[in-house]
Amino acid sequence: MKNRIRALRAGFQEEFDGYLVTNEINMLYFTGFLGAVAMLVPNGQQANLYVYGVNYEGAKAEAQNVNTELVKQGEDLWKKVAGHIKDQRMKKLGFDTMNTSVYTKLTDALKDSTSLEAKSEHVWNLRRVKDEEELQKMRKAAELTSRGMQAARETIKQGLREYEVAAEIEYAMRCQGSYGVAFDSIVTSGPRSAYPHGGCNERKIGRGEPVVVDIGATYKNYRSDMTRTYVVGKASAKQRKIHTIVKRAQEKAFEKICDGSNAAEVDRAARDTIRRARYGECFVHGLGHGIGLDVHEQPVLNATSKDVLKAGNVVTNEPGIYIVGFGGFRIEDTVLVRKNKGGRLTEGSNVLEI
Amino acid sequence: MKNRIRALRAGFQEEFDGYLVTNEINMLYFTGFLGAVAMLVPNGQQANLYVYGVNYEGAKAEAQNVNTELVKQGEDLWKKVAGHIKDQRMKKLGFDTMNTSVYTKLTDALKDSTSLEAKSEHVWNLRRVKDEEELQKMRKAAELTSRGMQAARETIKQGLREYEVAAEIEYAMRCQGSYGVAFDSIVTSGPRSAYPHGGCNERKIGRGEPVVVDIGATYKNYRSDMTRTYVVGKASAKQRKIHTIVKRAQEKAFEKICDGSNAAEVDRAARDTIRRARYGECFVHGLGHGIGLDVHEQPVLNATSKDVLKAGNVVTNEPGIYIVGFGGFRIEDTVLVRKNKGGRLTEGSNVLEI
Repeated sequence: MKNRIRALRAGFQEEFDGYLVTNEINMLYFTGFLGAVAMLVPNGQQANLYVYGVNYEGAKAEAQNVNTELVKQGEDLWKKVAGHIKDQRMKKLGFDTMNTSVYTKLTDALKDSTSLEAKSEHVWNLRRVKDEEELQKMRKAAELTSRGMQAARETIKQGLREYEVAAEIEYAMRCQGSYGVAFDSIVTSGPRSAYPHGGCNERKIGRGEPVVVDIGATYKNYRSDMTRTYVVGKASAKQRKIHTIVKRAQEKAFEKICDGSNAAEVDRAARDTIRRARYGECFVHGLGHGIGLDVHEQPVLNATSKDVLKAGNVVTNEPGIYIVGFGGFRIEDTVLVRKNKGGRLTEGSNVLEI
Repeated sequence: MKNRIRALRAGFQEEFDGYLVTNEINMLYFTGFLGAVAMLVPNGQQANLYVYGVNYEGAKAEAQNVNTELVKQGEDLWKKVAGHIKDQRMKKLGFDTMNTSVYTKLTDALKDSTSLEAKSEHVWNLRRVKDEEELQKMRKAAELTSRGMQAARETIKQGLREYEVAAEIEYAMRCQGSYGVAFDSIVTSGPRSAYPHGGCNERKIGRGEPVVVDIGATYKNYRSDMTRTYVVGKASAKQRKIHTIVKRAQEKAFEKICDGSNAAEVDRAARDTIRRARYGECFVHGLGHGIGLDVHEQPVLNATSKDVLKAGNVVTNEPGIYIVGFGGFRIEDTVLVRKNKGGRLTEGSNVLEI
């Protein structure tokens, strides 16, 4: 693993004397270890990773580029961190994110010595651009996800319950080497498909109904995200029409994805396609989101985003049309932003009827 | 569903003019809907549930005892909430939890009119005591988890990879009706078993090695948690001895679980058993945690806990002994606290050799 803490320090050192990380996924990014409670990065010395006893031996074995610091049972973590901040005479401390209760404890302990400032950009400037080691894992996660979607296509039939479909999908991904699901699998059928985040439940899939399958595998902590919409049996003319519009919207957005594109313009390419077909009101969410160690991360692709895409970003492209009472249709792939065009990481047929 | 918002109001109304909830699991508890971004509960009027477009129709269909309020694309959520707080002339507002960036926005917008105070107890006083409707779901989640553990016992053999075992466990739970995993399944074998939170990976299980299986099913958003430790083939005398100590520690703690017990004393019953066997240093975590809509919630069972158990709490009882290089042994059940004694929700044989 590259020394990402060095890169973090290079980013903040003109602004801060040190930087405190409290988000556990950010700590995973910097150290390769999941399960720490705080990481303090001074300007001049090695970083400290604070870990409770339950994860101490794991951290010592796995965490890279840090000194692992045990927080004992009954010991006050934030007093300990504040002590180290004072010892090192940090006057200006940046941090990634913090709960108000932690913020209050730290500012009380540091009131005369150190000012705290939220500045998560220093982390996100790094995390949003994936390096080759990360991309290898993301490609594998995407491949596993594509296999899960293939299992969905082979499994879905009339009379099956939504959770039974999820069972087959997750089993297929797991057996191929997935470390778990990237998020709770979505299998929504019939009218439930009109709810973009409908999870899955005991409902039996009926003939002629749309089924939205939105799934993701995880591989070595990296996530993937993919959606297809199927109709069991023969699709109606309206279902076919809507499916075609969504597919075209996804293609139009895909054509805009490259280094330097405005995220809002990529969103607009899909949104205009859907709007022109008079379903603009039914596309009730943004076009997509960055993905990596978190399933939703930077950059954001929606109508009000100020983000500019950069080679190495990995984002989802997922337009949808949702009509209450009728059903929902969404198509999604995970896409790598490259210099001249996007590269799909998830791959799979876009057949409607199964 | 009982009107839990009414119960929340009864708890805070002498102290606050209103209460703001921003934790999404707390909102799920109060409304039955997962996917909102804030909930404002005034003293006198109906509560507002704030939802983005992606979840608006879902919330309108499912959220109970609230008015569903759409947050439009590009609209500033926290300005909107602050406006409603001002309109209703709330002078003192309690809240459950908040990120510093949200806190800063709200206090800036409300500086002359409203004071904010973190007071999550008003939520936890309710959430930690499960009602009959919740217990039904938790019993089902526990039953599914016990079936998953049975699948583990039937699956584990020499040469199988950890993730392949997880695949069979999760498939068994899913096929019986689980809504997904309560947390990332843990299957750690050999030396990896010494890391309590080791996840699962490609490692092949070897003969005579301990395998820690820590799993949970979810049923209608309620979670369960169970651990067993197996040895493939014949266990060594030391493995058998440690397994027996952990089992006895769990029994000793179980005997202490009832309405009115101090959580720290329940922890001590297990810890003393392990300490007397000279493995005190190897029990590197607290005895357990509350469980419900979250996998880790109140009450907390460890040596420094001030919590007193109450009938209706659901907690885990999970002592363990971890020896780096040798392996780990943990036994865990999900337990309902009742008037006179605990009731195991997860059930399953405690055989060591398989």
